[in-house]
Amino acid sequence: MSDPIRVAYQGEPGAFSEGAAKRMLGASISGVPCRTFEEMFATVVRGDAVCCVAPIENSLAGSIHRNYDLLLETELTISGETNLRIVHNLIAGSTIPVSELRRVYSHPVALAQCAKFLAANPAIEAMPMHDTAGAVRMVVEGGRPEEAAIASAEAAAIYGGSILASGIEDDPQNFTRFLLMTRHGAPPLIESPRKWKTSIVFRMPNKPGSLFRAIAAFALLDIDLAKIESRPVHGKPWEYSFYLDLIGAVTEPKVARALDNLSSMAEMVKVLGSYPTRW
Amino acid sequence: MSDPIRVAYQGEPGAFSEGAAKRMLGASISGVPCRTFEEMFATVVRGDAVCCVAPIENSLAGSIHRNYDLLLETELTISGETNLRIVHNLIAGSTIPVSELRRVYSHPVALAQCAKFLAANPAIEAMPMHDTAGAVRMVVEGGRPEEAAIASAEAAAIYGGSILASGIEDDPQNFTRFLLMTRHGAPPLIESPRKWKTSIVFRMPNKPGSLFRAIAAFALLDIDLAKIESRPVHGKPWEYSFYLDLIGAVTEPKVARALDNLSSMAEMVKVLGSYPTRW
Repeated sequence: MSDPIRVAYQGEPGAFSEGAAKRMLGASISGVPCRTFEEMFATVVRGDAVCCVAPIENSLAGSIHRNYDLLLETELTISGETNLRIVHNLIAGSTIPVSELRRVYSHPVALAQCAKFLAANPAIEAMPMHDTAGAVRMVVEGGRPEEAAIASAEAAAIYGGSILASGIEDDPQNFTRFLLMTRHGAPPLIESPRKWKTSIVFRMPNKPGSLFRAIAAFALLDIDLAKIESRPVHGKPWEYSFYLDLIGAVTEPKVARALDNLSSMAEMVKVLGSYPTRW
Repeated sequence: MSDPIRVAYQGEPGAFSEGAAKRMLGASISGVPCRTFEEMFATVVRGDAVCCVAPIENSLAGSIHRNYDLLLETELTISGETNLRIVHNLIAGSTIPVSELRRVYSHPVALAQCAKFLAANPAIEAMPMHDTAGAVRMVVEGGRPEEAAIASAEAAAIYGGSILASGIEDDPQNFTRFLLMTRHGAPPLIESPRKWKTSIVFRMPNKPGSLFRAIAAFALLDIDLAKIESRPVHGKPWEYSFYLDLIGAVTEPKVARALDNLSSMAEMVKVLGSYPTRW
């Protein structure tokens, strides 16, 4: 039996990113927790992990722009994606009534997604931290009965916390899309006969109709677009890089032709990856 | 002489938003400082200010998504825009050598934009705060000689701080675009014969080619697009609202025709405002 795959992710064990990694690669991975997204990408670049799992978009909060920027800056390729339902749990060190809580720790996005719960419990102060699972560890180790965390059920299990309430998010239509990133030329981690996606980033000359022509390159060949996102180009105020997700693999002739047509018009085109989706 | 116009903005006196307001409306405005963007919009809705000035996009950090969401949620209209060069200054309570500083306070985006200065001065710890001008006030009032703030020259003047270094941002191509927001039907605040822009938000049916057809509605009539931005639709994972800025006023026949064509295809179109640009 081979060694488990080393997978870098941002956060501590029990992070939602770790859950996404297990969904894509199976339960027996070896996690490499990282403090920041930059550290996570760098860990894969220097070979201390085979891959990393980057949250790229939440269905309520929107795109995670730092990771869009890192996709462009780093020489890694997208090798897979998944989509995780985010369920927020109120977790304390022991089973006590919610009315006795005074502080709850979590990532600012998680706190924002539980705004109605917090509004209904005004005695509890929301305390931002950089990590959901790290908040559980701190609360369980700290031993202060008036403190709790908001995180995944996995984090409660790992650190021995008690789930006081489950599903406390405002909106159950809460999903995060994660990308699996590897080095170029790495052997595929996911074998799948299912739908493929391709992610690209491009810049067009700054003249009228540029974006229309870029999108036409795909529409004319009946290629579906799943997502478009713009990010500023540093040093060129009010010019943008466009990130596009399209349905299909770069090995399909019509996708290859559309990318070729785009390249003939664009200032820059970079294929960020062509990958099976495990949706 | 009439009373000065009451203008709401996020931050304390000396904030970059206040500078943008003066650039659009003249130096004799009456500022209404607000703690959050939500409070700023609400101040105009309930009539406690005639207008507000919302940063919408920075040429390095990208769009300010909370304000994109508030544009859609709030019944205000865009009545003008401007573009402000952001110059960051290191400001202390008294003139001391930079080498004696230990902590510097500012908004996280301002701290990030001065990353090279902070890396060159590792003895200084970066301390995030919700406001640049508020950081200057705190540092000047606090009287601790080892503390400084990063903010505008106006903030130094208002609170009596000393500028220890000016232009400490990494990249001088640092501009923020601000929108002037008023209630619907309010008399125009800016008279201008210059270029007009129109900002809209729309949702298309979730089927192939939708975005292409939406953009074609403008391209076919030779209408230039200045910006496109997507934001998630709550309750409908992986569907998006698109925000589009186009060159021209809604009163121009071709713009009216393009919006009419878009409306015939879209699930929703909302005109956020048609306004002169003071660029």
